[in-house]
Amino acid sequence: MNLILIHPSEIDAANRVVLADGRARHIIHVLKATPGKKLRIGRLNGPLGEGRIERVEGSAVVLECTFETAPPERPQIDLVLALPRPKVMKRLWAQLAELGIGRIVLLRAEKVERCYFDSHVVEPGFFNELLFEGLQQARCTHLPEVLVRPLFKPFVEDELDGLFASHQKLLADPAGAGRLDDVFQPGRKTDRAVLAIGPEGGWTTYELDMLRTRGFGLFGMGERILRTDTATIGLLSMLADRMHAR
Amino acid sequence: MNLILIHPSEIDAANRVVLADGRARHIIHVLKATPGKKLRIGRLNGPLGEGRIERVEGSAVVLECTFETAPPERPQIDLVLALPRPKVMKRLWAQLAELGIGRIVLLRAEKVERCYFDSHVVEPGFFNELLFEGLQQARCTHLPEVLVRPLFKPFVEDELDGLFASHQKLLADPAGAGRLDDVFQPGRKTDRAVLAIGPEGGWTTYELDMLRTRGFGLFGMGERILRTDTATIGLLSMLADRMHAR
Repeated sequence: MNLILIHPSEIDAANRVVLADGRARHIIHVLKATPGKKLRIGRLNGPLGEGRIERVEGSAVVLECTFETAPPERPQIDLVLALPRPKVMKRLWAQLAELGIGRIVLLRAEKVERCYFDSHVVEPGFFNELLFEGLQQARCTHLPEVLVRPLFKPFVEDELDGLFASHQKLLADPAGAGRLDDVFQPGRKTDRAVLAIGPEGGWTTYELDMLRTRGFGLFGMGERILRTDTATIGLLSMLADRMHAR
Repeated sequence: MNLILIHPSEIDAANRVVLADGRARHIIHVLKATPGKKLRIGRLNGPLGEGRIERVEGSAVVLECTFETAPPERPQIDLVLALPRPKVMKRLWAQLAELGIGRIVLLRAEKVERCYFDSHVVEPGFFNELLFEGLQQARCTHLPEVLVRPLFKPFVEDELDGLFASHQKLLADPAGAGRLDDVFQPGRKTDRAVLAIGPEGGWTTYELDMLRTRGFGLFGMGERILRTDTATIGLLSMLADRMHAR
């Protein structure tokens, strides 16, 4: 936990926060912090700041908060991901928040089992905690917006263009002969990109066509067949590296 | 499991293999394969090939194997990793094999707890199974060579130069001001690279100096503080992307 993340509703009019959950335990038992000590804090979807420990009362910690004026930049990358099996998705949540994603769409595809969408891993009560964990690791305050879409066609036909109107659109699939650099446009006048990653068996030809028609540039990742979480982390890192380089 | 990986000692003089473990269960219950069906196989540290199911006897499968003449290219990237905490290292093993690493050195650093080296996660009996899992996922036959080194100084002074004599040497640390492209030399006449990744708290100045003196080029990964496994997968993907691009 490299940042104590605070929800706006937890902050009172005098900029004080009382923590009594895992964050307090972390401050008391891991950081072994005492009154007067200043901690790095962040307001959810807002600015970073500093929390001075006013007092420790049993298992609760009272912080006096000061925040910077402006929040850090919103992550520039969005993700459309064919929902992997629940075990893999569970591992991935915190890592997505760590890497910094603006919006995550979890999408059905033909090679995605429908029952994955009944799993608790796509419920906010489950994944928000993991996203918070990732944000606190990476010192980020921007909670990714999560959309769960169990129907491919209506999402692509009715929502996709509106959600990613000005984005550079990239489509990863084993069917792609080229590499990321063959489709990524470093000089393009947009500061956002969306990456679509299919199921381990790949998108179907129909799905690829639907996405390509809407401006997605297809590329591959070489011969190795990676588990979805490995591929996702690798591709997001490669893309972030290029967005930074512009 | 996208490949059935077979140890050379399992293959008899007539190129037959009898499988009776998880591989057989996978063939019978997941692939639902029957006699005559051909499966993608690989000989550990050797070539890829094809296994024709000769018969299924209870829970055992008999394969008749043919192998290609030459093994696939050995992965071009080696890794020196400050051993992360056991829980994180456990998650990482299969993913390292998936991504394709020639040699993995797990190293002590000042900010690595010594007790991590007493964990079962650094015992071959534990990690080989996870490495196999990653190889079978990625359709790779090259088992990474693993060296566990609980002492930083003697490893760096006595072994490092010999192990990575002709390698391009790269050093990831939050202290690095530049990015990978500032130190990576795309035109260099070597086909191997070694990437050194420190603990989450970073290498110490002494450790950085020791590695830089031996030719490692220092770079950073931006402002986000990533968990070791996320950083490792991201950096290895970025590097593989560049090695391929040459």
